[in-house]
Amino acid sequence: MKTEEKLNLTMLCDFYELTMGNGYFRAGLQDRITYFDVFFRNVPDNGGFAVCAGLEQLVQYIQNLHFDEEDIAFLRDKHLFSEDFLSYLRDFRFTGDIWAVPEGTPIFPREPVVTVRAPAIQAQLIETFTLLTINHQSLIATKANRIVRAAQGRTVLEFGSRRAQGTDGAISGARAAYIGGCAGTACTISDQLYGVPAGGTMAHSWVQMFDSQYEAFKTYCQIYPHNATLLVDTYNVLKSGVPDAIRAFDEVLKPLGIRKCGIRLDSGDMAYLTQEARRKLDAAGWTECQISASNSLDEYIIQDLLLQGAKIDVFGVGERMITARSEPVFGGVYKLAAVEDGDGKIIPKIKVSENLDKITIPHFKKTYRIFDNATGKAEADYITVWDETVDESAPLELFDPRATWKRKTYTNFTAKPLQVPVFQGGELVYQLPALPEIQAYCRAQVDTLWDTVKRFENPHTYYVDLSQKLFDIKQDLLCRSR
Amino acid sequence: MKTEEKLNLTMLCDFYELTMGNGYFRAGLQDRITYFDVFFRNVPDNGGFAVCAGLEQLVQYIQNLHFDEEDIAFLRDKHLFSEDFLSYLRDFRFTGDIWAVPEGTPIFPREPVVTVRAPAIQAQLIETFTLLTINHQSLIATKANRIVRAAQGRTVLEFGSRRAQGTDGAISGARAAYIGGCAGTACTISDQLYGVPAGGTMAHSWVQMFDSQYEAFKTYCQIYPHNATLLVDTYNVLKSGVPDAIRAFDEVLKPLGIRKCGIRLDSGDMAYLTQEARRKLDAAGWTECQISASNSLDEYIIQDLLLQGAKIDVFGVGERMITARSEPVFGGVYKLAAVEDGDGKIIPKIKVSENLDKITIPHFKKTYRIFDNATGKAEADYITVWDETVDESAPLELFDPRATWKRKTYTNFTAKPLQVPVFQGGELVYQLPALPEIQAYCRAQVDTLWDTVKRFENPHTYYVDLSQKLFDIKQDLLCRSR
Repeated sequence: MKTEEKLNLTMLCDFYELTMGNGYFRAGLQDRITYFDVFFRNVPDNGGFAVCAGLEQLVQYIQNLHFDEEDIAFLRDKHLFSEDFLSYLRDFRFTGDIWAVPEGTPIFPREPVVTVRAPAIQAQLIETFTLLTINHQSLIATKANRIVRAAQGRTVLEFGSRRAQGTDGAISGARAAYIGGCAGTACTISDQLYGVPAGGTMAHSWVQMFDSQYEAFKTYCQIYPHNATLLVDTYNVLKSGVPDAIRAFDEVLKPLGIRKCGIRLDSGDMAYLTQEARRKLDAAGWTECQISASNSLDEYIIQDLLLQGAKIDVFGVGERMITARSEPVFGGVYKLAAVEDGDGKIIPKIKVSENLDKITIPHFKKTYRIFDNATGKAEADYITVWDETVDESAPLELFDPRATWKRKTYTNFTAKPLQVPVFQGGELVYQLPALPEIQAYCRAQVDTLWDTVKRFENPHTYYVDLSQKLFDIKQDLLCRSR
Repeated sequence: MKTEEKLNLTMLCDFYELTMGNGYFRAGLQDRITYFDVFFRNVPDNGGFAVCAGLEQLVQYIQNLHFDEEDIAFLRDKHLFSEDFLSYLRDFRFTGDIWAVPEGTPIFPREPVVTVRAPAIQAQLIETFTLLTINHQSLIATKANRIVRAAQGRTVLEFGSRRAQGTDGAISGARAAYIGGCAGTACTISDQLYGVPAGGTMAHSWVQMFDSQYEAFKTYCQIYPHNATLLVDTYNVLKSGVPDAIRAFDEVLKPLGIRKCGIRLDSGDMAYLTQEARRKLDAAGWTECQISASNSLDEYIIQDLLLQGAKIDVFGVGERMITARSEPVFGGVYKLAAVEDGDGKIIPKIKVSENLDKITIPHFKKTYRIFDNATGKAEADYITVWDETVDESAPLELFDPRATWKRKTYTNFTAKPLQVPVFQGGELVYQLPALPEIQAYCRAQVDTLWDTVKRFENPHTYYVDLSQKLFDIKQDLLCRSR
């Protein structure tokens, strides 16, 4: 894997993080310990869950955080910041604590995904990038996971670089798509940087470059006999594309004893064309020839194609995955949950809103996922105050915080903390898993969800409940805020 | 402006560009001169035109194109590429020609935006990045231009970094939004790299960090008396937010003789709240206090707010602009248009499709924009074969290539070539304009369009016509392809 050439992204922050930072400094609040939560409010595409991703890039960003002299000079020229603050930035590093949900974990609205405990300026400064990486990669991992599940075990490849929103949209997007379950990408640099397997064979221009389609196919088979996936829709799939491909396979691959090959369709009536192509290929003895399809696919079109009996082994998914086209925003927010007073006492903070959904859950918290020991299935997430513990030997009664009379008691369960420590006192204490491990972990964790949570239409709302203690603190703060 | 730290993006290419490249090399086609066009088929949001952007990043990419030893080693490990090809890549540089539509120009479906003339491998290799940068930045510039036009002269700021699709989505996205007409961004590094003016004041957390909202406001005004925009919706806009702001303005700014200040609303009923806030501010004598609004805005909500009489001076637009949420894909494609034979003769190529919209316009072409000399308005774009000229002294009859009986004759017009030479023989021959120039150029060029083309609902379809010669060549190729 290539050593990543790093762009210093410290200055990738909303300008108000800096004006606030200077303000905290001037107001003597720079050492005030603050707690911020990253959480989201709605699952894209009305899904039942999201897949968390982007933590590795957050770790790299935190480790690389620094203002160089050029940055300081740029800020000085704004005539807004005190020299004391600029000096402070010169020695700036992150000294706080971060807890996060591991990448690949299913996550649900309102629960803390990343929690930051740090002096006010530090916690504020990392807001923009923290949200950016978690929002972007969780968006794509969530979408990819939907598409992969729609393909019911068939291979899904990420093909979207050319329609991605910027270079990192392509590069990190391919990484997130792999976490969500894609087998590979077309994006070469994502392989080099992250080990996402890259592949690809030919575009229409290859076919057009030769005097005939047959010659284009034959040449390709000769050069890549073990990797011959031929694009058959440049002229006419059934009249010439598949027959020319079969001829090239017969003449080049058969004498070499090669049985594995492929064709790809990028346009037309995929259901009809792939069934006819399959028939022709099988009749010619090319039963191991894989059929790939790649034209504006998403989870719904894939579901529909399979319902119609399309014969597709590999789905190449482009713009609708790499931009999460149907809902291209993951709305993670970064909200103050608590501050510490001079004695280290944690004082919960709440953000009130006319919109009930926008009221935050106050305090430094700890979230548990409740797994049923008999089925292994995830039943609910349980958000507590940081110092609460869960007694797995006793029944646990949970209630819906928005309808407190709805109660359910769990027995024979395991309560697994959802977040892990990532930074402590500015030091990385988390061993970042390798990307294939994250993908496998994601698959296993999604398997712990009931099918009712995973369906696309009207999924069951997974329970995310508060402990009685946390609920009472929130109510108290709400009453006092009136 | 900061020296940009460059990530070598040569490997940001679809893997098939490399397998095809190696294939062309092995088939002896590497020196075959090819012509590729970038064009798009549909304007996002059913708009009447798009705004071209992303060329500067394409230029930087082309100038920086090279494979280093790590790249070569990575490719060797794939066991797909010949050593000859890997040696070729070691010395790889772009030696071809590129013509492009200048950034900020209104562009229309089917016309060439970027045209590449280069040896096959080179032209193929730059496909992915060329599409990525033009697609991404044109998408955001187009969306930003719609939003800016909806604001009818009021200031629009780009606030979306935290919801952008990756780091470059934020950074280049802010650049593109500025080209489209935004006055500035929240993204600090976009200011540092590209000179997009960055600004911002406070988040809700600033207000929550103090014992009272009033204290938070007062402290902010003391630190930034000339830049005091106070966020007034943390608790209750009209009951406490605006009154606390007025109190802080009165106590801190008034004694200093400062009249300019601002408040920002990020939630709630913007139409009602801003009218009430305006009334309170004016009654207190703060008539120069600007009101900013920033909650999930786009061109339609801005239009609607203004229709309702909302009193908003500055719109901060986030996720719906930085992701072009309503249609987050700009569908530019890169298609072979011609090749040269051994004698340098240009042989037009066409890509046929069952879908008529997907049939390409063959040949090396030159596009003219026809401006009416009396009004200065753009009337039509006229695509010709590369060696055709337009005689401005004679009447010019254009016809709709999809309805050839629809004809219109222009007199007293200027025919301005749409593309400019950017690279010739691998050398940059284009002076990249400064970003404010591009923004001004965009505004002036959008002004040359009739209002009927610019409206959001059912805009007039701007004419993009072919010369008779080009039309005949296309028909001939279509007939021969049957």
